[in-house]
Amino acid sequence: MQKRITFIGTGAWASGLATVLTKNNHFVTMWGIDQKEIDDINNGLNTKYFGNSKFNNPNLLQATNDLKKALEGTDLIVLAVPSAAFDSVIPKILENSDSKKLNILNVAKGIDSKTKKFFSEVIKKEFGNRLENCATLIGPSFAVEVFQNVMTMANIVGINQIFLEWVAALFNNNKFKLVINTNEQGAELFAALKNVLAIGLGINQYSNPNLKNPQAALLSIGVKEINKIYKALFEKADDEIAFDLAGIGDIFLTCSSEKSRNFSFGLQVGEYGVRKALEMNTKTVEGYRTANIFKSILKDLKIHVPFFENIIDVLFNNKPQSELLDFINKY
Amino acid sequence: MQKRITFIGTGAWASGLATVLTKNNHFVTMWGIDQKEIDDINNGLNTKYFGNSKFNNPNLLQATNDLKKALEGTDLIVLAVPSAAFDSVIPKILENSDSKKLNILNVAKGIDSKTKKFFSEVIKKEFGNRLENCATLIGPSFAVEVFQNVMTMANIVGINQIFLEWVAALFNNNKFKLVINTNEQGAELFAALKNVLAIGLGINQYSNPNLKNPQAALLSIGVKEINKIYKALFEKADDEIAFDLAGIGDIFLTCSSEKSRNFSFGLQVGEYGVRKALEMNTKTVEGYRTANIFKSILKDLKIHVPFFENIIDVLFNNKPQSELLDFINKY
Repeated sequence: MQKRITFIGTGAWASGLATVLTKNNHFVTMWGIDQKEIDDINNGLNTKYFGNSKFNNPNLLQATNDLKKALEGTDLIVLAVPSAAFDSVIPKILENSDSKKLNILNVAKGIDSKTKKFFSEVIKKEFGNRLENCATLIGPSFAVEVFQNVMTMANIVGINQIFLEWVAALFNNNKFKLVINTNEQGAELFAALKNVLAIGLGINQYSNPNLKNPQAALLSIGVKEINKIYKALFEKADDEIAFDLAGIGDIFLTCSSEKSRNFSFGLQVGEYGVRKALEMNTKTVEGYRTANIFKSILKDLKIHVPFFENIIDVLFNNKPQSELLDFINKY
Repeated sequence: MQKRITFIGTGAWASGLATVLTKNNHFVTMWGIDQKEIDDINNGLNTKYFGNSKFNNPNLLQATNDLKKALEGTDLIVLAVPSAAFDSVIPKILENSDSKKLNILNVAKGIDSKTKKFFSEVIKKEFGNRLENCATLIGPSFAVEVFQNVMTMANIVGINQIFLEWVAALFNNNKFKLVINTNEQGAELFAALKNVLAIGLGINQYSNPNLKNPQAALLSIGVKEINKIYKALFEKADDEIAFDLAGIGDIFLTCSSEKSRNFSFGLQVGEYGVRKALEMNTKTVEGYRTANIFKSILKDLKIHVPFFENIIDVLFNNKPQSELLDFINKY
């Protein structure tokens, strides 16, 4: 059955997901603040990110700067603005939507710097009793490939299995597949820490370009260490999330491509050092932010994760990059 | 303490491992049959594979075609000939070594076509009561990088922890690290099946060049399916081996590089079809051989591994390659 889905945001990822939904014959409204982008989308395009590639079924798509109108009769709200905008956007959503409870799909991953909570928790808190259901989409997926109808698989995570099934059914088609996983916090932890790992892989890639043995060793050790941190943090942890798309799937993608901002930041750290690499990035580097949060968490956990410790020492404690791999003596 | 290690074979992998040992001040003898290669090694080189790069400490290295001499007083025999040569080489080793029991390091991975046993089992059977200890080296390691002293980590697997520690201590240095894992059969199963997965990834890479979402999804799903097969085959299976260097470490390496023969074979299948790709490979393609063995094993197990089933169907049952990814509807 055709549903009405509202996207908060008009960026690349919003557009990638929107076109999956219009392909599946759902009706999509995108809310934004930039009139040029809005007009562009109303012409079936998002030229800023995707050039002349068209949305699927553009007749099922509209963009507007009128939030009230965008939220009218909506079945699902996809929160697709940068997490830094949550504080300003969520109150507006609450104000402009009618009284019934809201179903939210979150696409922000990781940990909020201010509260040190996962974004799903931030959302739950900020929507409060107006929230009916919430899920988060996590998995190996570059927006441009999703927009171009390239085969993509990701996890839909949350605690309500029925809602997850409902969201998956909206999105799934012959090229796009959401696989259900109810381990919300595990998925978010992997999503956050993979960005730290990607920085480490980027630094290594700069010193060891085109070499495969170190890269494979670091990926493998990195997954092991993330899983170890995960198990130390959550008593009931099992290995399922590590094996899923939100686990090693996303790690494969993020840690091996210069399209990933965290991996590129690692390359810059390799070439120019930490301080200069930071100056070169006007936008937040999630992995750096996350590493900063985990500095103290790892100390408290008292577990042995020598590669992560080395990444943190290079980023924050002046450890020479040339010693990034010296952890092999600790294994 | 300096040990005497005998390599059976003078190939790339034998030379890569030999130079790790001479770097660590052990005495290495390499036995071969090609006098030109033997002379080359006695000059501190293996030009066939590594051009002008020199062995570490070539004064600790000698090559010979005299097996009796090569085995004299040896502490460890590294069996580094292709597995197809086991039948002819192992009796010669038994004949030419003095009476004491032998310690073997095996570097052949996977499953023997004839007996359908893992190579470690074949070795144990063929050496019989002359075998003191046996271990297998498995992990993400291109020989050329090991020879060039590039940071490399791998697993040393076997059932005797003390022997594994002894072997690891011989090899470990600041750039090369063997991590102990006592799950011998799990490691060998992953080593075998990763080659099948690599063919699948290669086929996909041909149809979807430069696209990252499908590659990451397939790697992730592939690991999950190998782990599922592993657990169906072995009652006491846990997830540890999947996370180790012989698991995802080796999968990362094999499935993402054209230097891997199985991945390249997949690319050839993509471009030319299965029959022509087979004609183009004079040497055995391990993944194809393994897929052939697993055709019937998977049927008997009655488990649901749709991506592996699709790879097998493309290789043996005329399934069109364009349908390789149609399994996403089964997830």
